[in-house]
Amino acid sequence: MSEILNAIKANQQRFLDELFDLLRIPSVSADTKFADDVKKAAEFVAQKLKEAGADKVELCSTPGFPIVYGEKIIDEKLPTVLVYGHYDVQPADPYELWDSPPFEPVVKDGKIFARGSADDKGQMYMHVKAFEILMKQNSLPCNIKFMIEGEEEVGSENLENFVKANLEKLKSDVVLISDTSMISNEEPSITTGLRGLSYLEVEITGPNRDLHSGVYGGAVANPINILCDMISKLHDEKRKITIPGFYEDVETVSAEERAEMAKAPFNQAEYNADLGIKKELGEDGFTTLERVSIRPTLDVNGIWGGYIGQGAKTVLPSKAYAKISMRLVPNQSSEKITKLFTEYFLKAAPEYVQVKVTPMHGGEAAVTPTNSIAYQAAAKAIEATYGKAPIPLRTGGSIPIVTMFEKVLGTKSVLLGFGLDSDSIHSPNEHYGVWNYFKGIETIPYFLKYFTEMSK
Amino acid sequence: MSEILNAIKANQQRFLDELFDLLRIPSVSADTKFADDVKKAAEFVAQKLKEAGADKVELCSTPGFPIVYGEKIIDEKLPTVLVYGHYDVQPADPYELWDSPPFEPVVKDGKIFARGSADDKGQMYMHVKAFEILMKQNSLPCNIKFMIEGEEEVGSENLENFVKANLEKLKSDVVLISDTSMISNEEPSITTGLRGLSYLEVEITGPNRDLHSGVYGGAVANPINILCDMISKLHDEKRKITIPGFYEDVETVSAEERAEMAKAPFNQAEYNADLGIKKELGEDGFTTLERVSIRPTLDVNGIWGGYIGQGAKTVLPSKAYAKISMRLVPNQSSEKITKLFTEYFLKAAPEYVQVKVTPMHGGEAAVTPTNSIAYQAAAKAIEATYGKAPIPLRTGGSIPIVTMFEKVLGTKSVLLGFGLDSDSIHSPNEHYGVWNYFKGIETIPYFLKYFTEMSK
Repeated sequence: MSEILNAIKANQQRFLDELFDLLRIPSVSADTKFADDVKKAAEFVAQKLKEAGADKVELCSTPGFPIVYGEKIIDEKLPTVLVYGHYDVQPADPYELWDSPPFEPVVKDGKIFARGSADDKGQMYMHVKAFEILMKQNSLPCNIKFMIEGEEEVGSENLENFVKANLEKLKSDVVLISDTSMISNEEPSITTGLRGLSYLEVEITGPNRDLHSGVYGGAVANPINILCDMISKLHDEKRKITIPGFYEDVETVSAEERAEMAKAPFNQAEYNADLGIKKELGEDGFTTLERVSIRPTLDVNGIWGGYIGQGAKTVLPSKAYAKISMRLVPNQSSEKITKLFTEYFLKAAPEYVQVKVTPMHGGEAAVTPTNSIAYQAAAKAIEATYGKAPIPLRTGGSIPIVTMFEKVLGTKSVLLGFGLDSDSIHSPNEHYGVWNYFKGIETIPYFLKYFTEMSK
Repeated sequence: MSEILNAIKANQQRFLDELFDLLRIPSVSADTKFADDVKKAAEFVAQKLKEAGADKVELCSTPGFPIVYGEKIIDEKLPTVLVYGHYDVQPADPYELWDSPPFEPVVKDGKIFARGSADDKGQMYMHVKAFEILMKQNSLPCNIKFMIEGEEEVGSENLENFVKANLEKLKSDVVLISDTSMISNEEPSITTGLRGLSYLEVEITGPNRDLHSGVYGGAVANPINILCDMISKLHDEKRKITIPGFYEDVETVSAEERAEMAKAPFNQAEYNADLGIKKELGEDGFTTLERVSIRPTLDVNGIWGGYIGQGAKTVLPSKAYAKISMRLVPNQSSEKITKLFTEYFLKAAPEYVQVKVTPMHGGEAAVTPTNSIAYQAAAKAIEATYGKAPIPLRTGGSIPIVTMFEKVLGTKSVLLGFGLDSDSIHSPNEHYGVWNYFKGIETIPYFLKYFTEMSK
């Protein structure tokens, strides 16, 4: 399909410019002050889908941000691929750690630096451009539908209801998602497992007002100290999570499967060097790759309380807060884990303080089968453009909607991601390789072709 | 001395208005963005001292904020009282918890609400107004010197060098300080013991950049979790501080002294109800009053790390921070404790992270003798205006400069404070009773009179 490569070459600058326009819109769904920008990003995607040749393009309103829909049905008898992606991005805080402003994309060392460049604007937009090329060349091999949402980074709260209400409209043979990463550009891989998520905020209240630590310190429980105690007790010495029942539903992965996983190229020393750490830390009895894939985990994503400004303030604060998330593995229920955490944390609270737990969002873990037509087509597409068969890999991130699609739509997903773990998604200086962007645009048409052929 | 009361009545509104003008200046010494305001407050105090009749008023420059000096020497043979106070204030954060803006003083329920109203502008300014009255009535009974600094809330870093360089100028028979509180307006007390302080900031670094908690969570030490572990280990089950050697120099208070202390009126149930807590927490084997006076303590004054904005961000942060302070008792050395903490914390750090400890400021504990002329004069002055002898009381706050004055100047201090513990100093909605402000102005002349008479 050299005509695809030729089209990419001919449109290279425009394809980049358009992505940059999208990246310039600070569509942070978590922060209400960016609400207008989130909507602007939705309109941008809708407009580009229209220009590329999609029919029935619309902004489907939800109680939150709209879902962009568009489709091209060329023949009812051909298979239908539903492309899912998201146009919203993570907050860019802390801004001061970015080398260039997060919403002013620049290319440095062959990488596009901007919030959302990899997660997921850059990866989602590859599908719009691949579609545009196929439409222009009149070579779209199957039906295609687009469902691009704006609330992925805040838990896709309105997606399930939308899907339930539009079963016929979204009917498809596979959901195609580019929102994951590969081992490296030289070692392509396809994500076959994703961890689930339970994300909560906890609030500890000690005295009813901020106190002077000299006058009251030592006589009144300090909510920060208590919060630290409580967080510390969430792990034992072996870094196992202490919440009763937490591991109850965890699927035991067989020794054979673990042996298979261990074949993935991985070098602990290089991993540590890349992160600037002397030693890794994780659950006893598991390797790093296992810890981030087949094992559930718990991390504090944020903590705050008391005086955090410049200088010193001798305050014994009234409140302390933390954001805590747990990554879950297949068979663990996000709802159940959220309940177990809440019960445990409330019960663990000493009587000196009051504790409030607020569930933020969650999602189930998912495993995609490697023997499906969709997986096989994806593997073949990657082999065609990377010159090498991909490794199937379970990874640590969560895309809760994969499980939901299967449950509600009855459709399996394939996770054809082109990013790298080193892209710093959710971090300052998020970036996405220019090479990866165009490689994605090149590979997607192969997937559509092979999936159509293999579905016959 | 009914003429004092008459003068207060005649000038009541002006005395309040002037204090309000001073409170409107946001002289936050901890935050460089308020540097100009801190200087403005110094100029205000100097101007008012001049207007009241002080000689040799000057802003003595230091590497930090200036020290306001002024004096009135009426007779070399009479005793000299050195009034110490400070015109800087604590940061007002968090602003959103104030019912009225911290730098727009208002009177509500007989209390002046503003940052610095009690600590220490309101209490310091009583001396300026008492002095003004005595000058106008030509009844100043002794020599008086004023030394009002602008760095008390950041550790009085430049005060010691200033005192050392001005021994002759500051020569005096007692240092008079109003920067403490009483049990209540009905139960007057004088602070005879103050705790020392060691204040540090700790920084924990895990990976060299913020990571996606889904991709790396469970395999890499999270600096927030590690910081919580380390903070949690600073106390044992009996709420004793675990730093080796921490209690080594703590003075043992005799059973008799403890029995004497236990006579101070105190009701644990009322204390808890006032603070809105179900149960108090402190070191095993000591009462609440003992915990805040004769025992050293450790509190986290601030903690932060990761994402602390609205919504959810699944970040495994590179860094986590805490501000930690220890209150010390007589005989403990602030420098030694700072060293012990630093050594312990660095040693306690697991190899998964890097730890940095930055000492912020410190000061020694102090006990003032109750058998001194100064204490006796203060007690008599309070009895004259409150109609009740004050209870001598050791309290929890720190005024590190008391020890320094004794060491460098060779002069003892008397802590004639008119605030209340419930004034919320260092907290949102700091306030100072209008009654207390005028009671202080009324009492100070009695102290000067009795101290002069008893010194003969």
